[in-house]
Amino acid sequence: MALAAAWAGNTRASDALPDQVWGEGVGAAVADKPYGLPPKDEADMKRRMVPWLTADQTSSVSFAPLQYQTGIITPSGVFFERYHNGMVEANKRDTRLMIHGLVDRPVVFTFDDILRMPSETHIYFLECAANGGMEWRAAQLNSLQYTHGMVSCAEWVGVKLSTLLQHVGLKKAGTWLLAEGSDGSHLTRSIPIEKALDDCMVVYGQNGEMLRHEQGYPLRLVVPGWQGNMYVKWLRRLKIGDAPWFSHEETSKYTELRANGKSYGFTWPIYAKSVVTFPCPEMRMSGPGVYEVRGFAWSGLGKIKQVDVSFDGGVNYTSARLDGPVLPKCFTRFTCEWRWDGKPALLQSRATDETGFVQPSLGELQRVRGTNGVYNNNSIQTWEVKADGSVNNVHLA
Amino acid sequence: MALAAAWAGNTRASDALPDQVWGEGVGAAVADKPYGLPPKDEADMKRRMVPWLTADQTSSVSFAPLQYQTGIITPSGVFFERYHNGMVEANKRDTRLMIHGLVDRPVVFTFDDILRMPSETHIYFLECAANGGMEWRAAQLNSLQYTHGMVSCAEWVGVKLSTLLQHVGLKKAGTWLLAEGSDGSHLTRSIPIEKALDDCMVVYGQNGEMLRHEQGYPLRLVVPGWQGNMYVKWLRRLKIGDAPWFSHEETSKYTELRANGKSYGFTWPIYAKSVVTFPCPEMRMSGPGVYEVRGFAWSGLGKIKQVDVSFDGGVNYTSARLDGPVLPKCFTRFTCEWRWDGKPALLQSRATDETGFVQPSLGELQRVRGTNGVYNNNSIQTWEVKADGSVNNVHLA
Repeated sequence: MALAAAWAGNTRASDALPDQVWGEGVGAAVADKPYGLPPKDEADMKRRMVPWLTADQTSSVSFAPLQYQTGIITPSGVFFERYHNGMVEANKRDTRLMIHGLVDRPVVFTFDDILRMPSETHIYFLECAANGGMEWRAAQLNSLQYTHGMVSCAEWVGVKLSTLLQHVGLKKAGTWLLAEGSDGSHLTRSIPIEKALDDCMVVYGQNGEMLRHEQGYPLRLVVPGWQGNMYVKWLRRLKIGDAPWFSHEETSKYTELRANGKSYGFTWPIYAKSVVTFPCPEMRMSGPGVYEVRGFAWSGLGKIKQVDVSFDGGVNYTSARLDGPVLPKCFTRFTCEWRWDGKPALLQSRATDETGFVQPSLGELQRVRGTNGVYNNNSIQTWEVKADGSVNNVHLA
Repeated sequence: MALAAAWAGNTRASDALPDQVWGEGVGAAVADKPYGLPPKDEADMKRRMVPWLTADQTSSVSFAPLQYQTGIITPSGVFFERYHNGMVEANKRDTRLMIHGLVDRPVVFTFDDILRMPSETHIYFLECAANGGMEWRAAQLNSLQYTHGMVSCAEWVGVKLSTLLQHVGLKKAGTWLLAEGSDGSHLTRSIPIEKALDDCMVVYGQNGEMLRHEQGYPLRLVVPGWQGNMYVKWLRRLKIGDAPWFSHEETSKYTELRANGKSYGFTWPIYAKSVVTFPCPEMRMSGPGVYEVRGFAWSGLGKIKQVDVSFDGGVNYTSARLDGPVLPKCFTRFTCEWRWDGKPALLQSRATDETGFVQPSLGELQRVRGTNGVYNNNSIQTWEVKADGSVNNVHLA
């Protein structure tokens, strides 16, 4: 109850109540908003760009406002974007999905063909491999939106790749799949057939409606738990082969450069990761008292098993509560009570997934990978809470 | 594989491919759409009104486009609306939540007080008790959106009522809770304290962002599994008492009128219900072949255990597949393969929940309740599929 009192703030029934002028007349009718938008007061809930990060629209990215995301579903209106040749406006009528190569019956599907086939729904996160890529060497961006905003989470509906591949008849020699987009970049990625047959999907639905243009309308590949770059948008072609294609976007890009200057080959999964979303640089503390620390954790290998929170830069940890449904390859919300005494603190969260993988510190990651790389930064984030309640992105020595 | 062939439609690799002109140039940049909207081609995905149903904006309703909803999450942009005195635009700054009556420490919370308290996320459906109310006596509206569109499903984030009530200190005599909205209707509902302490929430988050004005921004009550009318919007007051208040909206409205002209008292829960969303009047069949019948099931008493689908008006049933996470008091998506021979058919779905409650036929419901009522129509919906592929809303004798 002592803690509860702290939550209640200073306002009590004896205080003067403000005028709630909105209750004095008749409100608006429904007819003028067939598709609704957020309140004007919430206009801060929007995607943002880092102007110097990408030169022009041929290679652009926008970051999702994780600091304001209340639940595990990222609203489609602020789902992060990444384009390799700008956002195109494809349509259903002219969309085709060709499946060919080492198959018995090559097929070109229309959109309606795909829509009619057996479908499934799954809630999965989607993270760009470059998320946190600016943070390898130094604490560069003092913002949760910019350090972690290239990850989002949505409900996806579509057809499993295994259903499509059963239809075309996979030949025994077919061990790899190439996915190609129909935008100007014609982005291509190689996917091992085991993954394709496991849980990959060709989706048309996102968060209860059709995909947005930004997310590849009308057809997109979903490769659960793997790098977002593989979720090919405006999907037009799947080719079955017996070796990877080593395409542009999996050789010159989206590979991990090591300390010795050489790259790892394919590194597909997103490993266990988490971040505290309150407090964070955009969401400061309002004075000493009891708070609920909040955040999201995710792993491309399965379910989140545990999240630990530290208030002293990783010396001591306490277990957070996992909130809501804990689903595989999906955001898991976590919360942790914190009585802040007003002294400087170093907040961290550390995720462990059901395979036992533990999210590493940045130092641990740098010792293995060096500091040449850009991709796959799943290190523990440290937020420095200062005595005045402001919050900064810092790298611990 | 024979079935798979039917799914594939008629298009094959040898057919001429359409021009996909969108891939010829550079697409749009991200900067001009900080909050995104659906593709223009999907403009049909919108809320709709029945003009004759509600006289003016003091009592208005819009229906959600269930026929186009791809997953269990209803996008906030098309979540159904019901106003008792129009939609008001409340703000956080002037919002207060008073808790008083039979409590030890009456409190007036600010919005920031509530935001700071321990929070939870849950995915729950929300159904107006009047959903299907126009369908008690005759098949009146030839549309899934109008027969079933007063139900939606969302992720809600906020504070449990039990947390708030622990804070104010519930007196032993406090057995009922009154919830009041701050709009012009000052809507009030009585809730037994057991329910309030069980799973009710004061929410501010919906589908990953703050509530929309339409849904009660910035604070709304959530009463999981019970009539939507109890999810008081623009929440301003919770009073603890020792008896129900018998308010306007729980006496002259939202009660079940029986065959003898008398009403039942409070009938709170939404009982097991389901509906086929494909095919439906808005989504016709495109000729004989194999289809996936799809729909949603929900129950205010807990999880959906089983959904059965009939193609002959309830003479024979086959089990549908439950798709995706099966969560309590939440939409559960179901699918069922159907090889349609092109002959007339009568499609139905029947939900059973984990308590063993089986969704009744309309005839069964009418025998118990008569046809004077409006509320709580959870009967089995019949869609008549005609030989030309069109689909009609019918009542079976």
